[in-house]
Amino acid sequence: MQRKVYDLSTPCLVVHKAKVKSNADKMQERADWAGVALRPHFKTSKCVEAAIIQTGGTKRCMAVSTLAEAECLQENGFEDILYAVPLSTSKIERCARLARAMNDFSVMIDSQHSLIALDSKNLGNDKQWNIFVKIDCNNGRAGILYSSDDALVLVNAIIKSNKLNFRGLYAHCGDSYHGTGLDCVHQVAKRTTLNVLELVERLKEESITCPVYGIGSTPTCSNPIPVMSKLTEWHPGNYIFYDVFQMTKGSCSQDEIACFVLTRVIGHYPQSNHMIVDCGFTALSLHGGGDCCGLTPGSGYRKIEGHPELKLAEMNQEHGLIRLVNESATLEFATYPIGTIFRIFPDHSCATAAMHRVFFIADESENIIEEWRPVSGW
Amino acid sequence: MQRKVYDLSTPCLVVHKAKVKSNADKMQERADWAGVALRPHFKTSKCVEAAIIQTGGTKRCMAVSTLAEAECLQENGFEDILYAVPLSTSKIERCARLARAMNDFSVMIDSQHSLIALDSKNLGNDKQWNIFVKIDCNNGRAGILYSSDDALVLVNAIIKSNKLNFRGLYAHCGDSYHGTGLDCVHQVAKRTTLNVLELVERLKEESITCPVYGIGSTPTCSNPIPVMSKLTEWHPGNYIFYDVFQMTKGSCSQDEIACFVLTRVIGHYPQSNHMIVDCGFTALSLHGGGDCCGLTPGSGYRKIEGHPELKLAEMNQEHGLIRLVNESATLEFATYPIGTIFRIFPDHSCATAAMHRVFFIADESENIIEEWRPVSGW
Repeated sequence: MQRKVYDLSTPCLVVHKAKVKSNADKMQERADWAGVALRPHFKTSKCVEAAIIQTGGTKRCMAVSTLAEAECLQENGFEDILYAVPLSTSKIERCARLARAMNDFSVMIDSQHSLIALDSKNLGNDKQWNIFVKIDCNNGRAGILYSSDDALVLVNAIIKSNKLNFRGLYAHCGDSYHGTGLDCVHQVAKRTTLNVLELVERLKEESITCPVYGIGSTPTCSNPIPVMSKLTEWHPGNYIFYDVFQMTKGSCSQDEIACFVLTRVIGHYPQSNHMIVDCGFTALSLHGGGDCCGLTPGSGYRKIEGHPELKLAEMNQEHGLIRLVNESATLEFATYPIGTIFRIFPDHSCATAAMHRVFFIADESENIIEEWRPVSGW
Repeated sequence: MQRKVYDLSTPCLVVHKAKVKSNADKMQERADWAGVALRPHFKTSKCVEAAIIQTGGTKRCMAVSTLAEAECLQENGFEDILYAVPLSTSKIERCARLARAMNDFSVMIDSQHSLIALDSKNLGNDKQWNIFVKIDCNNGRAGILYSSDDALVLVNAIIKSNKLNFRGLYAHCGDSYHGTGLDCVHQVAKRTTLNVLELVERLKEESITCPVYGIGSTPTCSNPIPVMSKLTEWHPGNYIFYDVFQMTKGSCSQDEIACFVLTRVIGHYPQSNHMIVDCGFTALSLHGGGDCCGLTPGSGYRKIEGHPELKLAEMNQEHGLIRLVNESATLEFATYPIGTIFRIFPDHSCATAAMHRVFFIADESENIIEEWRPVSGW
């Protein structure tokens, strides 16, 4: 008998395949329209099935956040994979295995330290290390400062080594998650893009051609500004699922959020005017709610689909505590009998997805049509 | 060649076996001294190896938070397992399998709803459902209110059914995590214990013997008060690893924290006076720090062993951002070369452990002597 969403044991993560496809298609259309390549980030779903959808079936051009992800994609026939975390020299051995096994595996560096380590690690067969340089456009995380002499020195050193192949520049505008409103997102996108282009120009002045240069982040790529078409690629990740936080950033509508946690009411507690669902931080993660952060009623966080009157007020390991948004009102327990099923949208889908070993894939009629198993660990 | 802690790929979770044993022994000694049984909670480690240590090798008397944990223990020959979450009727089929496969598997209920469902589910072979009643001593999570008539009605209904066997009362003083100072913990322990004992007395007045009645939580059981010896069992869980939060509650010393996340410095960023380690929320969880919560310098959270001058200020998926506690000072990057290894104690070890598929077990000489694989999912 066909299993439906409501037949699933709770808690679990349900993914709407049609929304995943639609999110992927729309991002590809935006990139096509801008005339840039799309290098989707794998970190959100970590499922091969999603990566195939994200690459339009080509299995080419992805970014990953762990070597476990890279190895999974390599084993599944993907090519042109960028390990988009500053390279730790302790991981060079595993990177070398991937570089030898693939036609196009790239690492990312932002220091002379990593460069020296790569330069002394021979891949054999005249194979070169493909290298992206991570640059910091005052985004506040990792990268070599775009305007620094060090950036030029680093690229020049790559160019000069016959063991290394300069693939390009990579910037992540993680600061597009700060601030509120699309204006903020657009300002970060503009600044980061112009800074990247400035470094490309400076390299050109030294007769260095930069084959690839891109920026990423779901907010900027969901609402791109025209100047981003001067880049050669974009590398967003979260867009494949989206989430409540992206919705508040204007990246998506609620209808585009492609996954949710399914949970059931397991207890009524009139003595404290709350009920409990079988979904705690092991199913949702603490992002955007739970006992480590205050939940602001009406903040839009921890939305329970179809129940604007309710909020997930606290989470323990396996319990979620549901209260009325209007806490002074009395919960009508009969409205939500024990066994009632709720759908909770993730505040941060990368974090929520990371809590699950299996994703249940639903079609538009809510039939469970597949199970996807994300790669885990490092 | 013997693998040492410092040989491990990062990030990873390292567990000191001697500390696990010592934490288990000390908790058992406290329970023995009080003359109560210890029913350790499995939810923190979810590793069979830890459960064997927690039960002193008897493989008897545990509490679990998921059916996956219960099934894992059953498959490994454990008995007397309590599934200590209010029973969802959607899980009765799996509970029935466990009840039939074991001599002593118990479920926990706090409503007539679950009782009716159990009463209509025949286990066969004259087997009865073993039932704990979850009671709420104003602890603010789940349970039937200890002072209510409903509590008496529910226990009476269990007693009257020939399909059900009343095993006892279970209270969890989760509110011992609120407030500060041992006085707070002691007040919660006293109130919860006295409330449990009051209900036991009320049952006695109705000629109902309560075989087992206990309370749990690591803060209360790490610093028990004399009246807790009037209970028949305690069921703490976190004590097997402890963590920084428990340290701030006075439950343990830093030296008793049995696990830590190992991470390496992978980038220096003088332009923003920070460095990055290869450990984000997928390795530590967001509990007690990270980008969803402000980190108060000197709060004791996100301690980096041996480096009181540093703090983990932000976390992304695979990056941790390390700053000086004194942010106005300039980070001396040469003191922490790329590749430097840090140990970060979990703020909440249950949450941090839940992020890992394998725990690396170290002996007192920092040799990696075992790998433990926790059960995951539900």
